[in-house]
Amino acid sequence: MSKKKVYNFSSTPTALPEEVSELARVGMWNYKNKGISVYEIGINSPEYEEIKSEAESQLRRILNIPQNYKVLFVQGDAVSQFAAIPLNLLSGHKCADYVLSGQFSKLAISEAKKYGDIAEAASSAGASPAYSTIPELTVSSFRPDADYVHICFGDTIHGTKFHYIPDTGNIPLVAEMSGFLLSEPFDVSRFALIYAEAQKNIAPSGLTILILRDDIVGEATSETPSIINYKLMLSGSKLCNTPPAHELYLASLVFDWILNNGGLEEMKRRNERKASLLYDYIDSQSYYTNPVDKKCRSLTNIIFITGDSKLDKKFIKEARRAGLVNLESHSSLDGMNASNYNSMTYDGIEKLIEFMKAFANENPKIFNT
Amino acid sequence: MSKKKVYNFSSTPTALPEEVSELARVGMWNYKNKGISVYEIGINSPEYEEIKSEAESQLRRILNIPQNYKVLFVQGDAVSQFAAIPLNLLSGHKCADYVLSGQFSKLAISEAKKYGDIAEAASSAGASPAYSTIPELTVSSFRPDADYVHICFGDTIHGTKFHYIPDTGNIPLVAEMSGFLLSEPFDVSRFALIYAEAQKNIAPSGLTILILRDDIVGEATSETPSIINYKLMLSGSKLCNTPPAHELYLASLVFDWILNNGGLEEMKRRNERKASLLYDYIDSQSYYTNPVDKKCRSLTNIIFITGDSKLDKKFIKEARRAGLVNLESHSSLDGMNASNYNSMTYDGIEKLIEFMKAFANENPKIFNT
Repeated sequence: MSKKKVYNFSSTPTALPEEVSELARVGMWNYKNKGISVYEIGINSPEYEEIKSEAESQLRRILNIPQNYKVLFVQGDAVSQFAAIPLNLLSGHKCADYVLSGQFSKLAISEAKKYGDIAEAASSAGASPAYSTIPELTVSSFRPDADYVHICFGDTIHGTKFHYIPDTGNIPLVAEMSGFLLSEPFDVSRFALIYAEAQKNIAPSGLTILILRDDIVGEATSETPSIINYKLMLSGSKLCNTPPAHELYLASLVFDWILNNGGLEEMKRRNERKASLLYDYIDSQSYYTNPVDKKCRSLTNIIFITGDSKLDKKFIKEARRAGLVNLESHSSLDGMNASNYNSMTYDGIEKLIEFMKAFANENPKIFNT
Repeated sequence: MSKKKVYNFSSTPTALPEEVSELARVGMWNYKNKGISVYEIGINSPEYEEIKSEAESQLRRILNIPQNYKVLFVQGDAVSQFAAIPLNLLSGHKCADYVLSGQFSKLAISEAKKYGDIAEAASSAGASPAYSTIPELTVSSFRPDADYVHICFGDTIHGTKFHYIPDTGNIPLVAEMSGFLLSEPFDVSRFALIYAEAQKNIAPSGLTILILRDDIVGEATSETPSIINYKLMLSGSKLCNTPPAHELYLASLVFDWILNNGGLEEMKRRNERKASLLYDYIDSQSYYTNPVDKKCRSLTNIIFITGDSKLDKKFIKEARRAGLVNLESHSSLDGMNASNYNSMTYDGIEKLIEFMKAFANENPKIFNT
């Protein structure tokens, strides 16, 4: 089967690495030559256990996850954890501190407020443009009696990431890491709970990964639906959704690909090389701009605008025709958002820059204002 | 790629129909020859809307869903609705009546009890063996002020199904239909809410379908997590999980297959023909027995036992070796459970009966007691 060559800059879901895609094409339909598709593998079968434990041990190796952390694979997107986190973790003073640093953290805050005393410890909403930087936090930014501190470690829409891991003292640090996880190494032990939806660096949509420190999983509030009760999830209860085998299988193929390609050190090197190429080009001219505070620029989501929303729309449309697809920003923002996750190739970024240069030449702004 | 011929009798997930499997192998990796995999299609893209609206209109045609019903595709298994139903529908007297007719309804009841006054209107737990029949219900079985009545329309584990639609008068009837939906025609308008996980007759795990009558979707209880708030789901809120494109795409291929194969009338004819073949064989001899009340026998899950659990285990093991896989019952029961969903072929049931005959000949019970 021949396939048209297209560069997919979508951020959710991202493309699978080419080699994984090829492996999956075979394995999905004939798992280990057993004559059944991964789609047909039930959650009570030995094959399922094999796929799941393989995925977990690969992830533990990639991230160097300490022994006192559990790994949970759950169904749903990251938003499924916005209620789960307060319902499971507001077990002490029923208060928690959230950092507002973008669209996603705003949603997380509004959901958490249903369940306890939630404060905004810091915000970058007032930056210009909004959310173009990451707040500087110290231990004193947080209420000492907070049950936990919640941050979104990056913001896909605004193209930012935390350039440091905040010190929260003895308060457990909870981080949403969908746009960051597996793009570079970091120290898991600085966090009490990490969660990320798969559809960035891991696998297609439908899977969320939780990495939880042993001591933070206690009794959930009594009204917690079983499907988002961490203690029940960890016990393997039949009242929880278990992710389908095909999701874990694809995740496992991606984990294997990362391990065989030099792990997170090498992912970081490649992602930085690609990101620098694009950021350096953007900074070298004035037709396109990236509004993000340089130290907080995302490695994985690189945003840029022409400053003219009609031109932006034209850019996106013509880029699509040239085989550079899904460059549009989130609907709440003007401009372009180029995904630079692990599966994006250097070649893809080069092609994008070539196109950007040609587009700027052919569409001088003087005729468009 | 050659694939070993295997008959998969698993009930969760079931196999995909052979023709769908072949179509999906191509489409999943190169959707409509656009050069991108269905895995890469984002929920905000026009392609996603196309796949979703196609799936909805196909399902409406198959089931003849009245205009005053909404269709929701959500992530998760059917268990995800066990909390969602009381949280969304206990809006009146905060009481509801449940019928206990198997393992799944037992779980639904225990979850619902967290959120209101839940009564067991009837039960088949005391049948011999437990849950081998379906309770006879009349309007007077229910509390007149109940906000809704909940039934599991079939029980996959115990091989039963409702042989009638209970009359609940003015009380909205809610039915879990995972093991029944799309196996035969029925009158949707008798129900206020129908839900079913995809992994039986529809698609691989990870997707649940809701069919809701307009008037029952009101304000959910304030502590309802957004991910299971029906009103928010219907509004397309970003705080809800949206099913990935690949799940809807596979569902849509299956819906198309059903429509092209004569719809539910023909599915029923085929399923009855296959089921009769197996039930008739079981009833014609004494080596294997099916303990279910004949009028309540499931079309889709046919259970049988030898009466000797060691022999049952041997049967399952040797059947697997003969290419008849996943015949084991749920872990709570002895014996065998043969899936007879739409994707099971007549040929598969014939092969199973051949094997049953040979096994009975080679393993006379007198030597095994």
